[in-house]
Parts: sequence; C-alpha cells; structure tokens
Amino acid sequence: MSLESFFNPESIAVVGASRQKGKVGYEILVNMIEAGYEGTIYPVNPKADTIEGLKCYPDLKSIGNIPDLVVIIIPAKFVAAMMQQCAKVGVKSVIIITAGFKEVGKEGRELEKQVVNIARQAGIKVIGPNCLGVIAPANKLNASFGGDLPAEGVIGYLSQSGALLAAILDMANAGSIGFSKLVSIGNKADVDELDVIKAFGEDRDTKVIAGYLESITDGNAFVNQAERISHYKPILLMKSGGTQAGAQAASSHTGSLAGSETAYECVFERAGIIRCDSIKEQFDYAQAFADQPLPAGPSVAVITNAGGPGIMAADAIERVGLSFAKLADETIQTLASRLPAAANFNNPVDVLGDALADRYEFALDVVLGDPNVDIVLVLLTPQAMTEPVATAKALVKLGGGKRNKPILACFLGAEKVRDGVKVLRQGKIPQYDAPESAVATIKAMADYVRWHTRPKRVVKLFPVNRRKVENIIERHFRQNVREIGETESKEILEAYGFVTPKGSVATTAGQAANIAQQLGFPVVLKIWSPDILHKSDVGGVQVGLNSEKEVKDAFDLMMYRIPKKLPDADILGVLVQEMCSGGKEVILGMNRDPHFGPLMMFGMGGIMVEVLKDVSFYLAPLTAEEAKQMLINTRTYHMLKGVRGQEGVDIEIIAEGLQRLSQLVTEFPQIQEMDINPYVVGPAGTTAIAVDARISVEQV
Amino acid sequence: MSLESFFNPESIAVVGASRQKGKVGYEILVNMIEAGYEGTIYPVNPKADTIEGLKCYPDLKSIGNIPDLVVIIIPAKFVAAMMQQCAKVGVKSVIIITAGFKEVGKEGRELEKQVVNIARQAGIKVIGPNCLGVIAPANKLNASFGGDLPAEGVIGYLSQSGALLAAILDMANAGSIGFSKLVSIGNKADVDELDVIKAFGEDRDTKVIAGYLESITDGNAFVNQAERISHYKPILLMKSGGTQAGAQAASSHTGSLAGSETAYECVFERAGIIRCDSIKEQFDYAQAFADQPLPAGPSVAVITNAGGPGIMAADAIERVGLSFAKLADETIQTLASRLPAAANFNNPVDVLGDALADRYEFALDVVLGDPNVDIVLVLLTPQAMTEPVATAKALVKLGGGKRNKPILACFLGAEKVRDGVKVLRQGKIPQYDAPESAVATIKAMADYVRWHTRPKRVVKLFPVNRRKVENIIERHFRQNVREIGETESKEILEAYGFVTPKGSVATTAGQAANIAQQLGFPVVLKIWSPDILHKSDVGGVQVGLNSEKEVKDAFDLMMYRIPKKLPDADILGVLVQEMCSGGKEVILGMNRDPHFGPLMMFGMGGIMVEVLKDVSFYLAPLTAEEAKQMLINTRTYHMLKGVRGQEGVDIEIIAEGLQRLSQLVTEFPQIQEMDINPYVVGPAGTTAIAVDARISVEQV
Repeated sequence: MSLESFFNPESIAVVGASRQKGKVGYEILVNMIEAGYEGTIYPVNPKADTIEGLKCYPDLKSIGNIPDLVVIIIPAKFVAAMMQQCAKVGVKSVIIITAGFKEVGKEGRELEKQVVNIARQAGIKVIGPNCLGVIAPANKLNASFGGDLPAEGVIGYLSQSGALLAAILDMANAGSIGFSKLVSIGNKADVDELDVIKAFGEDRDTKVIAGYLESITDGNAFVNQAERISHYKPILLMKSGGTQAGAQAASSHTGSLAGSETAYECVFERAGIIRCDSIKEQFDYAQAFADQPLPAGPSVAVITNAGGPGIMAADAIERVGLSFAKLADETIQTLASRLPAAANFNNPVDVLGDALADRYEFALDVVLGDPNVDIVLVLLTPQAMTEPVATAKALVKLGGGKRNKPILACFLGAEKVRDGVKVLRQGKIPQYDAPESAVATIKAMADYVRWHTRPKRVVKLFPVNRRKVENIIERHFRQNVREIGETESKEILEAYGFVTPKGSVATTAGQAANIAQQLGFPVVLKIWSPDILHKSDVGGVQVGLNSEKEVKDAFDLMMYRIPKKLPDADILGVLVQEMCSGGKEVILGMNRDPHFGPLMMFGMGGIMVEVLKDVSFYLAPLTAEEAKQMLINTRTYHMLKGVRGQEGVDIEIIAEGLQRLSQLVTEFPQIQEMDINPYVVGPAGTTAIAVDARISVEQV
Repeated sequence: MSLESFFNPESIAVVGASRQKGKVGYEILVNMIEAGYEGTIYPVNPKADTIEGLKCYPDLKSIGNIPDLVVIIIPAKFVAAMMQQCAKVGVKSVIIITAGFKEVGKEGRELEKQVVNIARQAGIKVIGPNCLGVIAPANKLNASFGGDLPAEGVIGYLSQSGALLAAILDMANAGSIGFSKLVSIGNKADVDELDVIKAFGEDRDTKVIAGYLESITDGNAFVNQAERISHYKPILLMKSGGTQAGAQAASSHTGSLAGSETAYECVFERAGIIRCDSIKEQFDYAQAFADQPLPAGPSVAVITNAGGPGIMAADAIERVGLSFAKLADETIQTLASRLPAAANFNNPVDVLGDALADRYEFALDVVLGDPNVDIVLVLLTPQAMTEPVATAKALVKLGGGKRNKPILACFLGAEKVRDGVKVLRQGKIPQYDAPESAVATIKAMADYVRWHTRPKRVVKLFPVNRRKVENIIERHFRQNVREIGETESKEILEAYGFVTPKGSVATTAGQAANIAQQLGFPVVLKIWSPDILHKSDVGGVQVGLNSEKEVKDAFDLMMYRIPKKLPDADILGVLVQEMCSGGKEVILGMNRDPHFGPLMMFGMGGIMVEVLKDVSFYLAPLTAEEAKQMLINTRTYHMLKGVRGQEGVDIEIIAEGLQRLSQLVTEFPQIQEMDINPYVVGPAGTTAIAVDARISVEQV
C-alpha cells in the first residue's frame, strides 16, 4: 500500500477546521500553515468564511477540486456521513483525528465499522481514527496536533499511542533529532502498523524504522514482511503489554512454560527487529543506525581522557558480551611513539587529562586503522585543558573517513561540553550521556549485524505420511474429541518419521506377561484409559519391571487400585511397552500463539523442565540452524554435548526431531498444543525414541 | 576521623596560587573567591605580591596565623618539603591537588610514601594527592578546580576519579541537583573512602551518601562501618573494575566459581549499599532518597493521562519484581464518582488526555489514601489541554502532605514540560525522563527498605574442638604442606561437628574385603595416596561395590593400574568407606577474598555445579537467616524442598552446615579455600554426611 498521498499531498482539506484557539481543528490548521506547507489547504467549516486568512468551504463538494488528502476532526457521530461525502467526491486518502471510536466501547466499535466499510467500498485509505496525524518534515507537512515540525532526518516513526508520540516529538525537537516521516496510527482501523512499516521500507528518505506498538494486527504477515525489510533497513520497536496467549489455561508443558512475552521475543528474533525498552534507548540506538556505518564485528576500542569512565566502559563491554578489542602491536607502538609516556597505549587508550584535540585525533586515527578494531567509542570528561569543540570536530572529520568504521562519542558533563555535543550532532557522530548507553547501542548494532549475516533460511521438508494424520485428526473432530490418545498420537509421530516404543495393550495379567516376554525385559506398564491424562498421578505408570511376576503383580495392582481412585474412568487395559533407558530425556513441544502461529519449544526432560524451566522457544517453521540454536540456547546444552568424560548424545537427531515436529504443526494448523515428552536420545548413531506425546486439536 | 576542618575551615592557604589564567593554581583561587568563601584566603607564592587582589605570602610561616586548611598545587617534587613546612607551622589539614604520585609508577609511589610519613608523624590529615579538591556549598567553600559551586543539597558525594567528579558536577549543575559536600579522594594516601563515608554519616547536612569507587582500602572495616551507616543513611555507590581475586588460579570449586565481581556483590548485599550502574542511575536514585520518604512496602500505583506510558510503567513494575498495587474498592468507587466515565479507575489510573491539574490532584489524593498503595508514580504526557505547571504544583502540594508516601513523577517530553519539571524540582518531587527510570528507582527504594527491616544479625557459635584443628594446621605448616589430606580434612570437619563416612585404609585385598564386611555393603573404594588429588581421573574411585568379590577385584585392579599411570605416586593403600546414597548431594564451600575475607558458597552437587554454575555466595560469618537465604538464592532450591511428590531434604541441616563451615573459616584465617563436596543430605531428621573435603591453608 503506498502512503505517498499522506506524505506528500498536493492539496489538503481540513474538515472541522476551527477559528477557536485551543481546539484541535484550529491547532492542526495552524501547524500546517506554520510548517510552510506548499500545497493548497482547504479549511472546511460551514460556519466560517475564512480561517487564518484561508478561504473556508461549507463542504467537500464546494471545493471544486478533489483534495489529495482529507483530515477529519469533526465529532465521531458525524464522521460516517463525512466519509460518504469523501466517497462521493472521489477522495482517496483520509486521516481521522477524531476519537470516540473502538477505544470507548461497543457503540464506538460500531461507528468505526461503518466508517471502515464506507472506506473499503470506495477504495479510500484511512489513517486513524483516534490519532495525532501525519508529519513529513522534508515536504513541510505537519498534518497533526503533535507539536512543531521536527527537523528533517532519516528516521521513520510510527506510534500506536498518540500521547507518547507527542512526548517523543517534544524530546526529539529538544535534542535536534530528525525524522523522515511520523505516523500516528491510532486505532488502525484501516492502515495498520505493517502498512506503515512497508511504506517506510520503500521510502527513500527513511534509513531507520522506529516505532511504538501495543498490538500487532496480522501476526504472520508481520513476521514475514518485517523479516524481509530488516534485511535492508533496521527496525527498532518498543512493544508494551504482553499477548494474552500465555495467560490461557494450558494443558501442555509447552503452553505453561511460554510466558506472555515469549511470542514477541520469538517474532523479534526471527524478523531481526531490535527491541527497545524505553524511548531513550530507542533514540540512542536510532541515532547510531541512522548516522554511522554498521560494524564488521563486535570488537570495541575505547579512547578516553580519564581512567574512571574508561573502566566503566570496559565493564559494560564485558557485561553485555561484546569483545574488548586487543590492539595490534603496531598500533600500540605507533601510539607509544607520539603519546606521553604516562598514557595507556592498550585498550582502553588513555590520552590523559591534559589531552588537547590533536592528541584525541591522533589516537582515534591510529586506533581506527587497527584491523582488530570494529568500533571506536570516544569518551571525554571536561577537565582544565580539555577542548570539547575542537575534539568534536576531529571526531567528525575522522568519522567521514575512508575506514568506514562506526564512531560513537560520550562527552560527559553538561554546560562544559554543550558546544562540543552540538558539533557532534551536526557532524552525525552519535553522542551518549553515559558509557553504558553507548555500549548498549554498540551491542544492538553488533546483534543486528549478526542477524544480518546469518545463513539463508532453508526449511527442510521431510517425506511424511500426511494423509494418515489427516484421517486421525478428522476422526477426532467427528467424535468431538480434542485430546488425541496415546496410540493415535504415536501413529501421528510415526507418520512424521519418529520412532516410538514397541508395545501393546493387555487386558489380563497373563496377557501382559506374554507381551513383556516378547518385548524383552525390562518393560513399562501404563494404565490404558481415554479418561486418564495424568497417569503417574494415579499410580498408572510402573517402570523397570524385570520379570513376568513383576509384570503380573503390577498389572493386578493397577486394576485394583485405580478404579477405586477414579470410579468413573473407563479402563480399557494396560499398555505393556519396551523401556527406553540409557539415553537422556528431552522434551520437544509446540504451543500455538493466536497471532503468530506455532512456537516450538525445546527443553531438558524431567526435573530440568519442571524446576529450572530451562527451555528455549523459536517460531516455526524451523531451519536446521534454528533447531540447533534452540538446543544451544538452553543452559543444559553442555550436558547434552557430554561433560567430564560422560559421553554426549546425538545433537543432530534432536535438531531433526524439532524440524519434523515443526513440519507437522505447520502442515496441521488444527494442532493447538503438543509435547513429545520424553524424547529419549542416546549417543550419536543410536535411534532416538519418542516415548510419549500429548496432542490437542481444534477445528480451524 | 572528623573532616570538619576540610569542610568548614576558618582560613585557607593556597600553596602554589598563580596569576596565570588556565593554571590550576589560578583556577582554584578564583573558584574559592567566586564561591563567596567567608573565611580568610592566603595565597602562597614567593613570586607574587598579590593575586586577584589578595595579599600573597612567600611561604606558610610568613602568614603569621596557622591556616585551618592548606591546599597544595605545587609540582610533586616540592610537595614533601612543603609538608614539612606544614608540620613545622602546625597545620592539621592538607589537600594535595598535585598529580605525579602513586599513579605514575615507582618513583611517584616513593614520593607519596614520604609525604604520608611526614603527615602521620605530624598528625596532619591529607586528602589526595592527585585529586580535584573539596566542595561544601553550604559553607560557600569551593577548594577545587571542578567547576562552579553547585547548589546546596543533602547529597554527600565522594569520587575516586577526579575527571568523573568534574563531569558529575557539570551535570548536577545543569539539572539543579544539590550537594552537602563533595570530596575527590584521589590516590587516598591518607584519608580514604571510608573516612569520608563515616564523616558523611555523621554530617547533619548529609541525608544521602553517594560516590564512585574503583577500589576499597580496608575491606573488613568498610563492610562493618558501611553496614552500620546504612542503617540510618542510604549509601549509593558506583563501583567499577572487579577485584582480581577471581582471576587467581583456583584449586577449589568455590574459587573457580567466584567471579571477579562476587566479592563486591556480597559486600554490597551485606552492608545494604545500593549499587548504581551509571551516573544517571545514581542521580535518579539519589533524588528520590534525598527528597522523598521511604515506602512502607513495594506496592506501586500509577496515575497517567495516556495509555501507552501507563502500560510501559506496568510492564517495568512487573519486570523488576515490584508489586502492582490492587486498589481498594472504596478507592475505585471514589475515583469513579468524580472522574469521567471513559477514565480507568483501576491501577494504572488513566485520568485521560484532557485531564487538567485538578483531575490529577483529585486522583493522586484518593490513590495516596488507599491503604494498599505504598508509592505513587505520576505520568504526564503533554497533550493539547495538559497543564504541566499546575499539575506539578498539585504534586508538590500533596507531596508534603500527611500521608508520608513517596511520590515520583515522570513528565514526558522536553520544552512542553520544562516549566512543570522546574516546579517539581523546586518542590522536591523527583522527576524522571522515562517510566522505566522511575520504576528502577522505586525498586532501589523497596530493596533498601527490605534490607532495613531484616531481622537483627545474630551469628550462632557452635561448641567445637578448636585446639584439634589448630594442631592439624600447624603440623601442615611445619611439614610445609598446603593441601590437607583426606583423613585430616575429615578430622577437621568432625571437630566442627560434621559427620563423615565410616571407613579405614586397607593394604591388601583381603583386608579390604574384611573392612567392607564390617561396614556393610555397598561400599566405596578410594585410592589412598598423598600424591593423588584427583582420584577419579586416574580410576582411583569405585562406587557401589556389593560383595567381597567385587571389593577384592576393585582393590587389585587399582593397585595394578594406577602405578602404571602415575609411577611416581606414593600409594599407601585403598580407603574402604561406607557408601552414602539415597540423599541429595550439595556442595558447601569457601573462598577467601584478599580484601573482604571468607566468601561462603552453596550449590547443588555434581552436574548442577559443574554445568549450571547454580551457586550462591555470601560473606562470612553467616547468620541462620543468611545461610538459609543462600539456599533460596539458587535456582535448584525447589528441588531441595521436594517437587512433584518427591520428598524434600533437610533444609535446616544444610543451613547449619553452612554456619558451622562459616565458623571454622572465620576462626581459622589460615584456611584459604575449602569445599565440602559432596555433602549428602537426606529427608528431615536424618544425618547429613560430609563425604569429601578439600582444604588448602596458608600461613597468615
């Protein structure tokens, strides 16, 4: 969807323009005029002849021309009628500032539906309602009541909160941060966050996309498009308020372990979106992405004129997991040849408290040339001889140089460095108020680069028996059953290439002993009933049975005890199963997020998942790399690989299991939640066995 | 140590005062005059008659009076001679601004020693050298070259980095943050961080102690005094650069698990010191501690005029582990009776975008009165009708009210809220630039209150056989052995009330079988040699031996195989020991920090400590509560308590073990590192067994 007519209209009608100061209809008109808009403005108000010197029209029709853009400020109850006028006249783009729609309850929701219906039928694009408007500094367009026109820049901003956008604008203006476009999406009845992000993606003037979101309209489309756009433009988002998916009563492990934020974390990770926790952090990051090249790697060098801040930066670099560049011998020698003897020639390079601008310039030039350095952070504290302005100029000069490495500055202080900071801002060197903020920004850049250079995503498709699974699921729907039982769960797993334990159901103790004899000892007995989901809790599982006698005893005890505990349960017999021992138990799972689809889970089995919640999540479908990364992301990964002489297990086969499960839940959206638990894995080369599974389905 | 003569001197001699602009000797004199100092200033400079209109003296003696305070700015090589003059004249307090001492290497270190010796002999207190000076705004004293005199306030600040202090002063002046005193401690050759903290502790004008430290001179004294002072004044510290203790090659688990920051974390935790990660964070916290009462509990209510920031605050409150106050029914009804219907009457209370100051005032007054609310955070975004100044006035009015609950404000924006923020500052309502910063501050306050209200520390002393341990350790020193062997380690443990496994050493297979017979099966065999520390690595441990035959076989195999692997090891036989099974294995440990003494460690045994590093540390000596808290601080605590029907183990006996170990290592400073691993613990009421221990000692 092109939003060009919102960003660069040739004429604008302001419906609800007012002569009364303080009214939104007045503020918007004045903002538009003061921004120096070069197209034509048509105030529409039947009760006025002129407003602020502009001729006023009683309605849209009387304008005579079709305005490129209509901004609507009249009360909510009149908006639908006005939209009909727009349709009649042939308007194609409308911003509805007016509040009082979906956000106020049922009646408002109805009004909003009406408005959208009219718009859709007439092919009108609508931003809002309940929004602040649209701003495009390069086109001198301020169709908003958010405040003064900000400086021109390369950051495209969208916000789901109008009030927050107003605060952001005010802060940006104070800090001279520039924007390409700003869009307040309000209730996003028509144009939504993704439409704006896509428009920013195509917009030549926008280099960085930033925004504040509370919800996402179409999860799948968002993931796919954001991932595509992230490849060439960084997307920096604040996201508040978790999805409610995690709060649902969950019957599987996976469901109960997925927190309310898990889905968004997976989405951001997949799509390469850089998450920001506060406005300040977002500004910090956006400046560097807007004005500096991306680093080739994560090695940071620090130049400082005081020890304390240098140590603080070094601590922060270590804390966030960046690497502290080891300077090349040549660099150290060159520094030593010109810096005073008391200076520190290693990273952090200390040019000493009496350093003038030339010493900074020399050190920065040398350090930038070091092949071991990817990024340079320059710290300055205002001391007696310090030259903040001249030093800033040196940074600006070298920043534009041929090395193409990012330079970040942290001039500490306020009054004493103010003019230096101005020079940095004008010269596109991002300036931070603390070493920690600069380091956090470098971390965001390094993470983006890592995401950027990951291998191309290729999802492997395994040959499977899809028809069989279809039949089982359909049968369950016909019988109105939502939980798939043990036998059929295993059939589903086998259809997707999993190996399950051998065994069959016995109805007498003798039969159980016979089956055990054929399987070979030890065996496991499990009570067999469609009504008992948590078998262990009622004593319905006995492991490690080593003889016919033990099997018979266990069978009879279950048949005697369980009906006493659960008199209403329909007991069909006891499953006698080979015992899978010797391997490690892991859990493979899936929980379907209502917005983003299947979230895959991996975790160590047993106590690890129960107590430590040592699990990792990823959005399906999984590539081989992503499946493996899920293992690596758990704390217990080392245990799987083998520690202290213990043999490790087959990592590849677990990753393959995750990919097969990912294929299954992607091909069957009816599967809502699913665990394979335990999935027993041995050393490389052995067969992994899916011992138990829980699958629940819903008609979609 | 009183520092009164530094903070409030009646006369000051400035040795090295200069007429030359830009020189430190000029800057300091001018700073002193411009601050409006009301005592007498004596510039000392043999080459000048007057400087800035003040009569100049050729030396200290010629002044005629004894100045209360001498500030020295002359080159390092002349400082010792000047100190001698000070001694002769009878000066008692000196600030040495001059650099070029310890920080520049060996020669400077010698110079510094000379200076300190002269001072100590003459009873002169020295601040510095290599420092910025001292500032006391209420006394109009600016004996520094840090910049303009800051506003008067209640924060006492000390800094080990002069450059950082200059930046902090500049930032504080820009933000109108006031101080009671500021001290740059420089090389802290005489007056150190603890002297200043103690002076601030006693200073009536100082309500909050804040500072930046890179090292601590006397660890034990620091912990004790800081803990004492924290009881009545909050101490907020930035600390950079970890202790090197963790980087030492460590032979014990505990040693290798203690990171470089572990000791400082333990110290801050024990002493109730609030750690700050950046200058901004420190300012954020300090303002609230300075100007607001402490909260009675951790329940936060939020009032906002926009949804977005309200959600952001709620997210942050949940993230940091504070509680989101549940408003009382009465509060909700009262709010509903006067706020517009579209407002939100639950927490976060949304007074809507068109809220004027009166609506904020009403809501704040009602919410403050709610017994479920401990702290109120007021958010404001500048919208069309918003009244930042009047709203700020309302906050100030209610802030001084009878409720005595802390109020924090977050007025978002810049220009549009500037005047409102000024009103807040003057009215002592702390203002934050983001909801997240305000929430982090509330968290710091709540943590301090929790520390403050913890039970009184009582360290239990167990009856032990101290003499026995003394003998063993002394014997080792005589033999020049630093690692205590298995038998004697167990004697030490038994002397401190631990139970160790039964067993004895066999020299033949037959003897081994006999011992096993007497102990009862199963047993463990361990190779017995002073030269083999890592028995398992050479096959020197065999567990779970169930018969005489198995014991004999294992014995002979060890005797055959191990000498082949380690031909030089002196093998004394094989230890036959009862096997402790059925319980859970934990590890109790100690690593002695060179500055702060014994750090106690607790962790789960085996793979948990190897792979997950699931351990907790605490400073010895431990109270019963602290020992128990160490268990709770591990992720695996739930596992100890019992999960999913598994019986838990005896928590109390583990805590007692930690206290006994704490007593041992406190009473024997010779013990450098020590692990009890595994310590096998069963259900409540059973005996816990210290199966193995590693103890290393050093003469002290």
